Amino acid sequence: MNIKEIIDKKRLGCELSNDEIKYVVESYVDGSIPDYQMTALLMAICTRGMNFNETLTLTDTMLNSGEILDLSSIEGVVADKHSTGGIGDKVTLILAPILASCGVKVAKMSGRGLGFTGGTIDKLESIPNFNVNLTDTEFINEVNDIGMAISSATENIDIADKKIYALRDATSTVESIPLIASSIMSKKLASNADIIVIDVKVGSGALIKNKKDAKVLSRYLIDIGAHYNKKVFCLLTNMNQPLGHNIGNRLEVLEAIDALNGKGAKDLMEVVYSIASIIISAIKGITLDDACEECINSIKDKSAYNKFIEFVKYQHGDVTNLDTNSKVLTVFSNSTGYITDIDAEHIGMLALELGAGRISKEDSIDYDVGIILDKKVGDYVKEGDILGRIYYNNKEIDINRFRNCYTYSLEKIKVDTILGLIKV
Amino acid sequence: MNIKEIIDKKRLGCELSNDEIKYVVESYVDGSIPDYQMTALLMAICTRGMNFNETLTLTDTMLNSGEILDLSSIEGVVADKHSTGGIGDKVTLILAPILASCGVKVAKMSGRGLGFTGGTIDKLESIPNFNVNLTDTEFINEVNDIGMAISSATENIDIADKKIYALRDATSTVESIPLIASSIMSKKLASNADIIVIDVKVGSGALIKNKKDAKVLSRYLIDIGAHYNKKVFCLLTNMNQPLGHNIGNRLEVLEAIDALNGKGAKDLMEVVYSIASIIISAIKGITLDDACEECINSIKDKSAYNKFIEFVKYQHGDVTNLDTNSKVLTVFSNSTGYITDIDAEHIGMLALELGAGRISKEDSIDYDVGIILDKKVGDYVKEGDILGRIYYNNKEIDINRFRNCYTYSLEKIKVDTILGLIKV
Repeated sequence: MNIKEIIDKKRLGCELSNDEIKYVVESYVDGSIPDYQMTALLMAICTRGMNFNETLTLTDTMLNSGEILDLSSIEGVVADKHSTGGIGDKVTLILAPILASCGVKVAKMSGRGLGFTGGTIDKLESIPNFNVNLTDTEFINEVNDIGMAISSATENIDIADKKIYALRDATSTVESIPLIASSIMSKKLASNADIIVIDVKVGSGALIKNKKDAKVLSRYLIDIGAHYNKKVFCLLTNMNQPLGHNIGNRLEVLEAIDALNGKGAKDLMEVVYSIASIIISAIKGITLDDACEECINSIKDKSAYNKFIEFVKYQHGDVTNLDTNSKVLTVFSNSTGYITDIDAEHIGMLALELGAGRISKEDSIDYDVGIILDKKVGDYVKEGDILGRIYYNNKEIDINRFRNCYTYSLEKIKVDTILGLIKV
Repeated sequence: MNIKEIIDKKRLGCELSNDEIKYVVESYVDGSIPDYQMTALLMAICTRGMNFNETLTLTDTMLNSGEILDLSSIEGVVADKHSTGGIGDKVTLILAPILASCGVKVAKMSGRGLGFTGGTIDKLESIPNFNVNLTDTEFINEVNDIGMAISSATENIDIADKKIYALRDATSTVESIPLIASSIMSKKLASNADIIVIDVKVGSGALIKNKKDAKVLSRYLIDIGAHYNKKVFCLLTNMNQPLGHNIGNRLEVLEAIDALNGKGAKDLMEVVYSIASIIISAIKGITLDDACEECINSIKDKSAYNKFIEFVKYQHGDVTNLDTNSKVLTVFSNSTGYITDIDAEHIGMLALELGAGRISKEDSIDYDVGIILDKKVGDYVKEGDILGRIYYNNKEIDINRFRNCYTYSLEKIKVDTILGLIKV
């Protein structure tokens, strides 16, 4: 095998053989192929693409580069959920307790975020004393004991993805459907749940900018899952504005707690209920409407909230006096009209600059900072109304950059949060 | 400036600004952009292309990364020649003495080869005691004294190209017309001759596989030259079979000497005379036919041969008893018919494996080894005739791999060596 010939083939748009893909991934992981040659291949893949068979082989090789979790000691069907990444996405924190309180086992390995804001693990770490580093046994025991667990993916899982993802991030080779699909599915298959819902974010604040690409990605994800006898559902959701009101790690935990207390934002709860219903309906063999009814009841009767508190305590966290310790700047609107757009990507960038996210893996996160959007798309705003609040520490704040994320019109526009469901 | 954003722009096929191109090249040369990020951009350029303005800016930045030779102390018009690289290409060794003996000044900075066989500098170094490392002053003095000089390009010239070319070679990002054009022209502009002929090799054994790409490359080369008031001519020549009979460093010097003694192969002399005529015609303002007449006379009256001997002596070389010191394996044909094709790329690969070329920059070259093609395309061969001779040391020779490079037919085919001339 010759890496230069393999790069050449992909540069010219040819299909790589299974052996070639395995050789490249294994040699990159063991260090015999250097970063610069791997980058050449990744960029060639970004621009020339990979077909389903290549993507499946890549996924399989990455999956087998690390440990595969053995969930056989968990009784019943195990559910997992993944989001392709969006601004203000605290869905997991609300979804998992709902599912667990409805009797569905949730075993979720999660990651730290790279980009605008933290990942689910960062959000949980903003809770004092919360332990995200469970051993495999602790993780499985917790699912058996309380019906859910969220843990940081261990170093031993999907070793290839960790190394390749870091390189993709540094070389602008992230935006490739086959590379995104193999990265997501190799991790999810290593976590080994039976039913997986992927929340495919679509819009300006997401990796995937349009519905056409989202559909192509979904097809890859579902078909790869099917190859391993996993049921994968892809829910396409709108990321043209941030999800819910709060952006920033502790602020998002606080919003999740509010949501579990029945005060969730409309768009946020639509995503939560949609995913929960898909999973419950598939596992219990009931209609989506009946499944949704169960979810709504778990919020009404506080069983989901109580499950969240049980979960936090199980992992040694304490949300009793959870609050942010930062300065707050209230931003008033200087326009009047219906909000037609909130630029999610720019809001994300502002949150990142405040310290809510990481630019490189080594950066630390400020859990306290973030942004609250008091007004969302479709809301009517008068000049002088509170538009949002910026939670900051030690940073100069440019209010106009925040204000410029908003677009207004005289007519109210309709926004769809759920853009579609794709399944086998 | 943000390298990731610049990579992103090119990945999506957008035009880079002059400032972005300058930033990337300068930062890569000073080490602040690492190999893997530069590779990402190079591969994006390979697959998405660059327009003329981008290519010109890249050339200019590379040119200015090093010293530009000052040829002002050479009287008259100075000529230079470059080949995009082919198998058995010893044109410079014959062309330069012809030009010098016709009164044209030739100042040629040349390189060592990477790939199938050595470059002109490697070929000259196969001559005992030949000094290829001239200072700028020695180089200019020699041109003034005897009308020609060939020297190894110094480390100070086109520093960016040296670093970028090594990376392109390692990452299969060589085959890109804008990258080839900027690499050639930044070096040629740094050598600073007034008239430059580029021998654009086209065919299986060349970087450029078809005439269409050769024409596009030629347009870039000529237009970049025009921007610096340099007259650039592109001669498209056939590289579907090796040029002349001999492949390998010392074997090619021997063939050049034969050619200067009037015994040059037809295809080889067609290329030499074409390039020489273009230069002489342009400088002296005479027709191509008259210029060609001068060249032919310089061979007939031995003035070109004598110039070569003068040149070799000037640079301390000695060709008196030049010969190869290797074992020779004669290969007989096991077919009968007209040769319709000799696979130049495979012949080059065999020569490389014999030790005639380098795979990586640090490899040493065996000057003695190589291949002589006794028969060429168009020749009639009977079973048992001598097809070629393999000059080797310490290598197992697979005769059939050599034989398989030949294709035969019952009908003679016509081959054109010169495929076209492109000028301003």
